[in-house]
Amino acid sequence: MEVGRKLLNSVDKCVDEALEGLVRSNASLVLLRGHRVVLRSDLENIRGKVALLSGGGSGHEPAHAGYIGMGMLSGAVAGAVFASPPPGSILAAIQALWRRGASGVLLVVKNYTGDRLNFGIAAEQARSQGIQVDMVIVADDCAFTQPSKAGRRGLCGTVLVHKLAGALAEEGCPLDTIVARVNEAIKNIGTLGVSLSPCSVPGCLPSFQLPLGEMEMGLGIHGEPGIWRSKVASANEVVKTMISHMTDSYNKSHLPLKSGDSVVLSVNNLGALSCLEIAVVTKAAVHFLEEHGVLIVRVMSGSFMTSLEMAGMSLTLLKVDEEILRQFDAKTTAPAWPNLSTVSVSGKNLFMEPVEKSAAPADKGNEGSLVSSIRLVLESVCRILLQYQDELNALDRAAGDGDCGNTHARAANAIQEWLSISSIPVNAGQLLANLALLVQERMGGSSGALYSLFLSAAVPHLAESCDGTAWAKALHAGTEAMKRYGGAEVGDRTMLDALCPAVEELKKLSTAPPGGHMDILQAAVDKADLGAESTCNLTARAGRASYIASEHLTQPDPGATAIAIILKAILNALKGDRERSKS
Amino acid sequence: MEVGRKLLNSVDKCVDEALEGLVRSNASLVLLRGHRVVLRSDLENIRGKVALLSGGGSGHEPAHAGYIGMGMLSGAVAGAVFASPPPGSILAAIQALWRRGASGVLLVVKNYTGDRLNFGIAAEQARSQGIQVDMVIVADDCAFTQPSKAGRRGLCGTVLVHKLAGALAEEGCPLDTIVARVNEAIKNIGTLGVSLSPCSVPGCLPSFQLPLGEMEMGLGIHGEPGIWRSKVASANEVVKTMISHMTDSYNKSHLPLKSGDSVVLSVNNLGALSCLEIAVVTKAAVHFLEEHGVLIVRVMSGSFMTSLEMAGMSLTLLKVDEEILRQFDAKTTAPAWPNLSTVSVSGKNLFMEPVEKSAAPADKGNEGSLVSSIRLVLESVCRILLQYQDELNALDRAAGDGDCGNTHARAANAIQEWLSISSIPVNAGQLLANLALLVQERMGGSSGALYSLFLSAAVPHLAESCDGTAWAKALHAGTEAMKRYGGAEVGDRTMLDALCPAVEELKKLSTAPPGGHMDILQAAVDKADLGAESTCNLTARAGRASYIASEHLTQPDPGATAIAIILKAILNALKGDRERSKS
Repeated sequence: MEVGRKLLNSVDKCVDEALEGLVRSNASLVLLRGHRVVLRSDLENIRGKVALLSGGGSGHEPAHAGYIGMGMLSGAVAGAVFASPPPGSILAAIQALWRRGASGVLLVVKNYTGDRLNFGIAAEQARSQGIQVDMVIVADDCAFTQPSKAGRRGLCGTVLVHKLAGALAEEGCPLDTIVARVNEAIKNIGTLGVSLSPCSVPGCLPSFQLPLGEMEMGLGIHGEPGIWRSKVASANEVVKTMISHMTDSYNKSHLPLKSGDSVVLSVNNLGALSCLEIAVVTKAAVHFLEEHGVLIVRVMSGSFMTSLEMAGMSLTLLKVDEEILRQFDAKTTAPAWPNLSTVSVSGKNLFMEPVEKSAAPADKGNEGSLVSSIRLVLESVCRILLQYQDELNALDRAAGDGDCGNTHARAANAIQEWLSISSIPVNAGQLLANLALLVQERMGGSSGALYSLFLSAAVPHLAESCDGTAWAKALHAGTEAMKRYGGAEVGDRTMLDALCPAVEELKKLSTAPPGGHMDILQAAVDKADLGAESTCNLTARAGRASYIASEHLTQPDPGATAIAIILKAILNALKGDRERSKS
Repeated sequence: MEVGRKLLNSVDKCVDEALEGLVRSNASLVLLRGHRVVLRSDLENIRGKVALLSGGGSGHEPAHAGYIGMGMLSGAVAGAVFASPPPGSILAAIQALWRRGASGVLLVVKNYTGDRLNFGIAAEQARSQGIQVDMVIVADDCAFTQPSKAGRRGLCGTVLVHKLAGALAEEGCPLDTIVARVNEAIKNIGTLGVSLSPCSVPGCLPSFQLPLGEMEMGLGIHGEPGIWRSKVASANEVVKTMISHMTDSYNKSHLPLKSGDSVVLSVNNLGALSCLEIAVVTKAAVHFLEEHGVLIVRVMSGSFMTSLEMAGMSLTLLKVDEEILRQFDAKTTAPAWPNLSTVSVSGKNLFMEPVEKSAAPADKGNEGSLVSSIRLVLESVCRILLQYQDELNALDRAAGDGDCGNTHARAANAIQEWLSISSIPVNAGQLLANLALLVQERMGGSSGALYSLFLSAAVPHLAESCDGTAWAKALHAGTEAMKRYGGAEVGDRTMLDALCPAVEELKKLSTAPPGGHMDILQAAVDKADLGAESTCNLTARAGRASYIASEHLTQPDPGATAIAIILKAILNALKGDRERSKS
């Protein structure tokens, strides 16, 4: 076991630097010189109101200093990592708030012996100086079925207490009223934590050992192990176990919760769980609670009360009535409070219906002569791509992952299948749109995306007309889209090296004399052949081949080769069609 | 190497469940049925305005769906973890926004080939359906000194683009204006990432191997390794290296930054760095930039564009003018946007001065007879505590960590030192306040806190008077405070078992006949002795001894014993004093 790596400057100064980082990031916060105390910089605004002070060991960021702002805390006192702050600093903070005209100072303390004693000393000393001060103890941990004398620990529910008390203080409630109402609210908060990893205090070994695949349930927030250990289960099972334990009346520290109750749910990242996991856990928790008839009015999910880099999370439930919810929803400027909507979550509509897709292609029916030419062309292209599958794969083995033939074969198979069950649309734009969708869904790889892009960009130009001019514009738009979105140009050893010269030739379709189309197509095929051949001498600057040293690339690019093959297949099919119609 | 543990239900469904978790947590979000698409639930509010759509692979939560709301995105499309979303879902999202009356749809795309192609296909298909759609490509990565054809990657700067474009769209700016202004802003964004760990796609091995103590610099956000590797350095050095690289004109992908420029700084947790570390890094970055004359107008620090559980961070700089800052500050309801102040960070006052401490105790001068009695009492207490140091340690070895004698000896030494340099205050309240501070600062342990608490709570009652009644009240207040904040009661095998019966006796001081004080004190000492002795038979229910099986606790509690010793020392000193004054 080794001391963990951290991105810090020094173990001794990390707390001071973190507090300075917070204060330097927020113009609304200020440090009390000589102490690990953060205060609102606009203390003139607490004059005549109750000031709220919290704090405790560090390592729980953004708690507590991140919750300082209008509508939440007036200040926070930080101890060393996981250690209670000294009474002298707590007292200095109380004095600073009192001297700025607060009508009283309420200390919000998590139920840990060290915090109770040190905040208690400061409170008693402040009182002996004539300062109006009182304390609420947050004890929201539901872990222990038989809690010891020390009672439930104070966990992430503390953040909710900051919010409720802060709203009351901002409204101008007197100290004794806030104490009474907050003490009532605290009874309606329950929290339970779970972790898949320990954490380590800077400079120290991890706080406990946890074999891979096991998890600790019922954790505190100071790196201590939980109260039971089990195999890592699915998110749904973990959430079920947690909420059941939290609300089971057999558990002496449970939160009484019944169907029909309204709750705020807080899903708290203890540090290093991914946001993806937190979102999955949130879904599981909302689902489990709603299944049990609990109405979820608000959900907050994120990092609210962390335990350094512990890969775990805690669930907090706060039972609310209309008044508590009003306090929860009240505005705050505290930087760590999330941007929440004030609309109830349960009962809302989860889904919006997408725009109807256009009807499925009609069954194969009679096709006109133009359409039958297109069928011949497509069949020819598919046939030749399947025929060249191995050759394209071989070219690709030298430059990439050797599947260029397979990719094109997948497209060929998809088109063949489509031809066998569908009518070919008479409208050329519609045809290309269908092909775009086929290659996009069935071909795969970047090639699939690039062909789809080419076809999609060509579509609008063939919607009204499919004469030579329309085709010239459509092909131009297709190659431009490939360049724009794909990021490659001619000369980069890609399919563009065959496609672009061919399309340059095909643009002549817009001015071709009657009967001149086949000559232009023949010239385009020749250009594509030359272009594909030219890639032997090019350095790859885009696509997977760009990671291969150029001296290993002596054969033509498989993508460019495929373009040349396809164009040849089109030409041959049209030639054959013409022969047939002549005969 | 093993597949990492995650708190998920299934690898296949994790993205869908995470999106559902987000939507279930926010009444303002809705899912597009059949797609991994999240939209604003109040799409009626985008009628006539440009809709903003972003997206990309999952694993970057809260990006992108967390940035949906008034003033930011209208929707987001998610792919599988680290994989570009399919064009069909992107198109469905575009259609949904367009059909709700958006005047146009702007796609905000990170510069990765897959995203460019798939968003490009959807854009072309949407265009062919007559939808007004355009795209901006975010490319903010400053890692590559010689960027390849693919250009700079799109990283955390994308979140800032969401914000700026969102503000413009909300104001009713037309599509082409937004595109032009956002493309200008993108040139003024630079990002660089660093990590102390890899991450692992659910169900897969970690994306790279990193020996303990090394870090990867210049990372993308898909788990790929960085562009150079080095030893983990201090936060200050890492930040210096990063910002220097990001702004060095030798680096072809640098962000030009000079003294006097104004910037927004975003410190982004890539996943599993502790919030403590992020705060330290933030401090380092602000400090480094300010040292170089850069004006920091806003700082955002948190998890904005993650890479699953990568223990790393990225720094993003956005150069701003008044107009860009206005867009940055504009209101948004997006759940993942932080609660930021709109006051400039640089140039603000970092510190507030604490309330002046009361003057240091005066030098030792002449003392009256009362004061000299107190001196004798304190000297006697100190002497006896030092004398019993080993015995108290021995008692504590059986029940705790064996330092109870040392703790009390530290208090004795501190008081002796204080007596040698200071006058004893004539006011008994002031005396106790001084002693409270001494034990609080020098004694240590819970005992130090509890004695300080006792003394501090007693102080107010002795401020005006020090007759028997005042002492009775003061001692009662002291024991009550110890119980209240310490959480123990008589019978819990603590110092209270000696203290409380003694104080009960001492309360008689308030009604004692003249000359009866010594008898009451003698009775209190006897009660304390009995109380201390009685702890032999008690089960520990508070303090460290509560973790020891009761059959191992056969000796008296050391804390209770110390109380009995102290009281005896006080009695003896007063007796001796009286003898002396009689003689």
